[in-house]
Amino acid sequence: MNYKVLTLAVGMGLAANSVVADSNVSLEERMSELEARMDNTEQTSLDSASQASQFEFHGYARSGLLINDNFNGATGTGPYMTSAGALGAPVGRLGLEDDHYVEANLIHNRRLDDGSSARFHIMLADSVETNNEWTASDSQLNVRQVYSELSNLSMFEGSSSLANATFWAGKRFDRANYDIHFFDSDIVFLSGTGAGIYDVQLSDNWKTNFSIYGRDFGVIDSADLDIENYIATMNNWVGNWQIMLSGMKAADNKERGAELADSGVHALIAYHGANFYGFGEGFSKHGVLIGDGLGAEVKGVGSNGNLTKDAQALRAFTYGVTRFADNWRFAPALMAEYSQDRFEKNDEFTWVSANVRLAQELTENFEMVYEGSYQYMDLDNAVDSAKGSYYKATVAPTLKLSTSSGFFDRPELRFAVSYVDWSEDLNNYSINLDPESATMGEGGEMVFALQMETWF
Amino acid sequence: MNYKVLTLAVGMGLAANSVVADSNVSLEERMSELEARMDNTEQTSLDSASQASQFEFHGYARSGLLINDNFNGATGTGPYMTSAGALGAPVGRLGLEDDHYVEANLIHNRRLDDGSSARFHIMLADSVETNNEWTASDSQLNVRQVYSELSNLSMFEGSSSLANATFWAGKRFDRANYDIHFFDSDIVFLSGTGAGIYDVQLSDNWKTNFSIYGRDFGVIDSADLDIENYIATMNNWVGNWQIMLSGMKAADNKERGAELADSGVHALIAYHGANFYGFGEGFSKHGVLIGDGLGAEVKGVGSNGNLTKDAQALRAFTYGVTRFADNWRFAPALMAEYSQDRFEKNDEFTWVSANVRLAQELTENFEMVYEGSYQYMDLDNAVDSAKGSYYKATVAPTLKLSTSSGFFDRPELRFAVSYVDWSEDLNNYSINLDPESATMGEGGEMVFALQMETWF
Amino acid sequence: MNYKVLTLAVGMGLAANSVVADSNVSLEERMSELEARMDNTEQTSLDSASQASQFEFHGYARSGLLINDNFNGATGTGPYMTSAGALGAPVGRLGLEDDHYVEANLIHNRRLDDGSSARFHIMLADSVETNNEWTASDSQLNVRQVYSELSNLSMFEGSSSLANATFWAGKRFDRANYDIHFFDSDIVFLSGTGAGIYDVQLSDNWKTNFSIYGRDFGVIDSADLDIENYIATMNNWVGNWQIMLSGMKAADNKERGAELADSGVHALIAYHGANFYGFGEGFSKHGVLIGDGLGAEVKGVGSNGNLTKDAQALRAFTYGVTRFADNWRFAPALMAEYSQDRFEKNDEFTWVSANVRLAQELTENFEMVYEGSYQYMDLDNAVDSAKGSYYKATVAPTLKLSTSSGFFDRPELRFAVSYVDWSEDLNNYSINLDPESATMGEGGEMVFALQMETWF
Repeated sequence: MNYKVLTLAVGMGLAANSVVADSNVSLEERMSELEARMDNTEQTSLDSASQASQFEFHGYARSGLLINDNFNGATGTGPYMTSAGALGAPVGRLGLEDDHYVEANLIHNRRLDDGSSARFHIMLADSVETNNEWTASDSQLNVRQVYSELSNLSMFEGSSSLANATFWAGKRFDRANYDIHFFDSDIVFLSGTGAGIYDVQLSDNWKTNFSIYGRDFGVIDSADLDIENYIATMNNWVGNWQIMLSGMKAADNKERGAELADSGVHALIAYHGANFYGFGEGFSKHGVLIGDGLGAEVKGVGSNGNLTKDAQALRAFTYGVTRFADNWRFAPALMAEYSQDRFEKNDEFTWVSANVRLAQELTENFEMVYEGSYQYMDLDNAVDSAKGSYYKATVAPTLKLSTSSGFFDRPELRFAVSYVDWSEDLNNYSINLDPESATMGEGGEMVFALQMETWF
Repeated sequence: MNYKVLTLAVGMGLAANSVVADSNVSLEERMSELEARMDNTEQTSLDSASQASQFEFHGYARSGLLINDNFNGATGTGPYMTSAGALGAPVGRLGLEDDHYVEANLIHNRRLDDGSSARFHIMLADSVETNNEWTASDSQLNVRQVYSELSNLSMFEGSSSLANATFWAGKRFDRANYDIHFFDSDIVFLSGTGAGIYDVQLSDNWKTNFSIYGRDFGVIDSADLDIENYIATMNNWVGNWQIMLSGMKAADNKERGAELADSGVHALIAYHGANFYGFGEGFSKHGVLIGDGLGAEVKGVGSNGNLTKDAQALRAFTYGVTRFADNWRFAPALMAEYSQDRFEKNDEFTWVSANVRLAQELTENFEMVYEGSYQYMDLDNAVDSAKGSYYKATVAPTLKLSTSSGFFDRPELRFAVSYVDWSEDLNNYSINLDPESATMGEGGEMVFALQMETWF
Repeated sequence: MNYKVLTLAVGMGLAANSVVADSNVSLEERMSELEARMDNTEQTSLDSASQASQFEFHGYARSGLLINDNFNGATGTGPYMTSAGALGAPVGRLGLEDDHYVEANLIHNRRLDDGSSARFHIMLADSVETNNEWTASDSQLNVRQVYSELSNLSMFEGSSSLANATFWAGKRFDRANYDIHFFDSDIVFLSGTGAGIYDVQLSDNWKTNFSIYGRDFGVIDSADLDIENYIATMNNWVGNWQIMLSGMKAADNKERGAELADSGVHALIAYHGANFYGFGEGFSKHGVLIGDGLGAEVKGVGSNGNLTKDAQALRAFTYGVTRFADNWRFAPALMAEYSQDRFEKNDEFTWVSANVRLAQELTENFEMVYEGSYQYMDLDNAVDSAKGSYYKATVAPTLKLSTSSGFFDRPELRFAVSYVDWSEDLNNYSINLDPESATMGEGGEMVFALQMETWF
């Protein structure tokens, strides 16, 4: 019986063991198989991730119908519709845009294991007025940007100033450009063809971009001259402050007109506030731009070859976005400019544009948007002068994917009704001395819009 | 000895246990590691899937050589080559196309966790005749569509009619357009710029799309008039039936010509059969379109501003696709139209187009395709008239990736030989009253094609 | 006590068993759960991989500023800047390019489980000179390629010659084209619209491509003639040897000019060496091209309709790339051509272009690139003649992502200084008989470049 006990005990132990062993073998096998599948899948998954992130598609677009109160297409409207528009004076854009504007960005990324990377960017852009779909005869489709960047280059590893720098060359919009969306106006729009360095860390608190941009002012065939303006810029961030300094030179621009500038300087000083004018969430930005000679086109730095050598301009801006009362968003903006000797000796232009956009978020997908816009102009092109005001009020019921994702979340699908009017004194006035130039025409019009706007 | 038994038994039990335990610890560790890797990989994989599905690339293209029997480029051919082509009367396209036509769609999707989504769509399109590769001087490249959609918006969750609706605005081809591929003709081609709602569920069996489209008829500079046609459409599906109703208004179109229409109505009634005329697999569709005034361009709804106020048109169509005898596909199509007072008082046009395409699938990658096409025309432009018939027969040995994936599987690489001929009466006739207008010329020609066609 | 032993022993066995069982159950559950997650993730991952690989984005681009020593835009430079450039005689490109050239390829792949696949390819291309960003009025944006390919078709499985063949149709650059990058010159640039077969395996060591390409020479409206040139090519690889034979016919080209050729033949014999002229790593290629009649445009096979029926051309080339002294890359190239009766009876042209590009890799991201270029021309257009030499020397400090990835790794961001000069005899000479034709002008100029170049 003792023997039996032994036998039984051993038998049961073995039995237990053998059950366990069988089960383990099977788990082991399944585990090994699973580990092998995991190896595969991790690789496939990383490859896919890498492949997917190589390509990026980004865009901006707006497209819509704009109808006047005679039930025809509205003409001549848009954020630069006023007499001062030719100076870059914008009004609130909501409900006034009749164009189909597209920016399609195709981007190719390449990343090395050491953290360095290359980025190639092309932007196709188009802008047409026609509502028809086959637009070949109106097409403006063009390559607006084509450039390459190199970032975090391994040769600068450990460098305090260049370790995180980005080098670029090609044709581009400067990365540091920023805009007042409601005016469809950049603060500065530095662009053209050239090369530069971003994110040079000069000290803990001081970052700089350096760039050289070239722009074309035109060809004088008789003299075999291709007149170009070369703009050197240093764009600094010290804390919340931005100080951007540019000098430019267009060697033979005087060949295009004896009074024209052949050089210029430009400066921007701005404060980028991380809240809404010191109280409340959101942001606000304010600043001053000054320019002289070729620098007197203060937004499109160095882009205008028709400025006189005495041209001077001073522009100021402030804008911000905040939220109040839970489901209201509020975005005021102000831009003003004084310039003189701009296109002719003794011309003198003053304008002030004010705009407020309000969004009342009624559901996750629906908001009422309101925009009020005002512009004061005092314009003297050295021959004729005009003075007066422009007014616009817009109401726009708007569908969007997620009002809670914010004011700038897009797409928006909107219906808009606007009323625009202005002082009669402006009706037939044009800054351009050419008698054929477009004028504002008569005000006092309702315009109706069906529009989509998106970016991503 | 009993003690020994105990010891042994316990020992063996423990041994078993400890073997198991060791093995378990190791399996446990491997399991935990694997679970961690799985967490990572699932995330990477989902991120990739999400990133990959954000972007979509779709297209249609055809490109090929077309050679006449004098070994020169064939000219003047294509599905709208007949005198009635100017009225939208097509003939079978196979073997007649000399153009390089491309549609490239770039799409950006954005999906929220609640199931709502946004979709942005641009279409670049081009059409050139030249076989050379640098086509800048012939280029028709243009942005044919640019629109945004919002679908399954959370604010309509629970709504019986709008829960699955899609809202859109911008420039587009209407989503509900459909075509007879063999004719290169849409049944209706509703397009332009506007806004609308798809998939409004009015009852269990009744779905509707609402839309407003605007189209441009031209600008009258002297009057500062931008004449546009606004088309309101309700497009209903009740079971297999489609009932589409449109009204349109172009307020000042009479300024373009005293006899021109400034409004119009349009209707389509169609039956979408889920089989081939009641017997056999495949599908068949039939319907009638009627239009009055600006609605008398029954395919391109509201797209033609040159219709008279008395213009009337009636069009009927039927087509289907089936398979017979195992490896044969069969696709007949018929379209006919009667119109009067179309471009001039008392003009009167009748045409009937019949077409049959047959595919004999010989292997998984090769098929013989045959197309026979006939068109009868009785055309009177109020000044001249002509009457007669057009005939075409085509044989096209065709390579494709998978004949078993179906008749409409693409790409197809094809060689085609066609014989085209028509009644002599048509040779010098043009619907257009301008004596410079193109005419059919003489028939009785062989044309040879090497072409690819694809969509995806 | 024996009983107890038994009990204990059994108990412990069971205990061990049950501990193990618990642990196993839990591991089993975790394993099963993990296996289920793996199934999911594998599917998602494969779907993503498949989706990601459906779309491909590839491109080539260069964009930069080119400034002359008067601080204006440099004009008239580029690899085809010399009088012989009109004959396709290139000089070294580095530091001379003033254009913004982009090729953006959008590709859609479709793969079946049986290994067969379809590939659709479109290429958008643009070339502008202006440095400004909105280039709508200069835009050359066009669709340069649009074609489809079918590969590894299942119907040819087991065929020794066609199992791995690729069939194509549409408009394209031939897949077998290759270039001397430093000259911006293809050896042959076969392109146009047509159809063909790649990779026909005629024997173990003999692979052939067959193709037919059509090109347009122009339309003669009065005769309703669309004159096209049809080129049939057989392009063979036997070991390292390439033998490419083409014949072509443009039936009515004589209608464009009585002396013009209406047919032609063309041959290329080349050796593709897998090392640098027999010693050292790298590669080298050499060959001879001959052409007669329409074939006498030996690079752009069949692309020039203005060749006389007696035109004859003979071109030879050799180039290679190697590395020496560890961090130096060396790439010499030579191309020379003799042609006669080319555009006029008794014209006679000889040119030889030699170029050396050297890269001194100083760090992983920085290299100095040097290029020296020389061209000899002896040109007689049957009315005037000129003879002389062209010289260029360029130094280009260059940033790139990874110099160790090689000479052809891109992007490169470069600053370049070049000195160009030529014989005075060439100053006012043009091959074109039109007195308005551009000439070389005066030499002896420094040009400064800021440029990016990339491909991917």
